[in-house]
Amino acid sequence: MSKTTRSEAAPLTADIGSETIPLKQACVIAAREVIAAEGCAALSLRDVARRLGVSHQAPYRHYPTRDDLLAEVLRQCFAEFAQALAARTPHENAQDELGSLGDAYLGYAAAHPVEYALMFTDPWPQAAHHPAMAQAAKIAFDELRSVLTRVYAQVPAPWQMAWVERDALCIWAAIHGLASISRLDATAALGLAPVSQLRAHVFGMIERSMANESVLNNNIPKQTDT
Amino acid sequence: MSKTTRSEAAPLTADIGSETIPLKQACVIAAREVIAAEGCAALSLRDVARRLGVSHQAPYRHYPTRDDLLAEVLRQCFAEFAQALAARTPHENAQDELGSLGDAYLGYAAAHPVEYALMFTDPWPQAAHHPAMAQAAKIAFDELRSVLTRVYAQVPAPWQMAWVERDALCIWAAIHGLASISRLDATAALGLAPVSQLRAHVFGMIERSMANESVLNNNIPKQTDT
Repeated sequence: MSKTTRSEAAPLTADIGSETIPLKQACVIAAREVIAAEGCAALSLRDVARRLGVSHQAPYRHYPTRDDLLAEVLRQCFAEFAQALAARTPHENAQDELGSLGDAYLGYAAAHPVEYALMFTDPWPQAAHHPAMAQAAKIAFDELRSVLTRVYAQVPAPWQMAWVERDALCIWAAIHGLASISRLDATAALGLAPVSQLRAHVFGMIERSMANESVLNNNIPKQTDT
Repeated sequence: MSKTTRSEAAPLTADIGSETIPLKQACVIAAREVIAAEGCAALSLRDVARRLGVSHQAPYRHYPTRDDLLAEVLRQCFAEFAQALAARTPHENAQDELGSLGDAYLGYAAAHPVEYALMFTDPWPQAAHHPAMAQAAKIAFDELRSVLTRVYAQVPAPWQMAWVERDALCIWAAIHGLASISRLDATAALGLAPVSQLRAHVFGMIERSMANESVLNNNIPKQTDT
């Protein structure tokens, strides 16, 4: 039976490739490598320690539980995702900007399948116990909230913030569904067109469907997409 | 080094609980147990043989590769899913039936999270090599095609089958996104309403957004949902 006392001599740095970096940061890099190679379910603090060549107790200094490490990985992913969304092509017309936000979203999902699946498929650690992670996720979601607020604000009719919230969740569901189906590559088997050909139609559906039609549909010039 | 010649004496049955059933069928039951317990990535023919207490060569008689076994599991899941969709509440009005199809879809996803994730998250075996699997998936999808065809058919204006195909994929994306987000349980962290409260809004958005608005939006009585 091995003793599990925490050694005071545990290393504060680890080597990743030819670089020596602080252990706290190295753990996150190693965790992302484990997740990319073996999936989220395979992540353990012990495995991270083994990869870094440090004692299996060392990571516990910075991450008392596996969930703490996973939450930090997720926080980083959400921050990168929010940055990608914020880097969308700006448009004076808010509906056009909603389209470029959608493109930025789908572009990120296609370019970063591991991170996307981690954020939106695998179970999160409890958000209440990991406020930094939850806050980073909220910042990413706020990109959609802010564009939708602009969409409503450019309509000359009363509107409520509650509609923005409701639409944001529905639009997220639609775009998330599209991103997920794109990854599946099942459309050919189902006799359907490739998802990439449907981008314009989905965005058109979202535009036409938005919320309280007495506000938006009657005030924004209608477009046909055929 | 062990010899890997295939034994002619390999068993044709296996015991699952107190039942003795044909090996071919037992392999699928065991595979579904592995997937439920450890995830799809953990599935191997060797592990299935071990669970069934048969020689590790025995399953190869019926399933030459892991993909063949996985495709049969998926075929079963799609058949069960199609059955659940077909058991929806029927409605004379096709738009109402689109709603009950959506409810049947979301109900299945909530009640069968393992099967749902297997069908729509994990990578499929190549559909071209597993026609029975692809056919079962298509039968499930055809439930949506047939309801949408009825939606268009009840509108007194010309329409094209291509619109049904296009809308079917978009509506599937939206409902799949909703099902996925429901499982995530991230809405509280993002300051959003629970997904369950949004069902009516999402279905209303779909109804309003459907395809060529000059056909549908101008011919179906509009509903407000606030």
